[in-house]
Amino acid sequence: MATKGNKRKPARLRFAESLRSIRLDQGLSQEELAEKADLHRTYVGSVERGERNVSIDNMEALADALGVPLHCMLEE
Amino acid sequence: MATKGNKRKPARLRFAESLRSIRLDQGLSQEELAEKADLHRTYVGSVERGERNVSIDNMEALADALGVPLHCMLEE
Repeated sequence: MATKGNKRKPARLRFAESLRSIRLDQGLSQEELAEKADLHRTYVGSVERGERNVSIDNMEALADALGVPLHCMLEE
Repeated sequence: MATKGNKRKPARLRFAESLRSIRLDQGLSQEELAEKADLHRTYVGSVERGERNVSIDNMEALADALGVPLHCMLEE
């Protein structure tokens, strides 16, 4: 399938990198983002490192806290 | 924030509806999709009903099984 290339980065890492990049662009600390998203700071850190199999509800909370559409954080 | 409208459908429901719609377009049963994604049929059914706080790894497995980019399943 055309969309299933072997070199594609896993969704978990695309989300992790988008999260970190947008957070830094907005000048937010992990703690500030965590507070806005009503999540724990250490949890946000582990999501940014791609360590967490993050759930859709938490992905949405993080996207909303950053004010960006969730699907934009997953583009390939 | 412009992207945070109150009327927006939750990401969990957008994913659920995309999953069901694309699966039916492809003429697949829940069981066939589950097998392609290496998930359980009842789990796929509950994701399609928006009952599950599905994880990013399983979202990717489902998108890959359907041959569509994951971010396309989350557009608003």
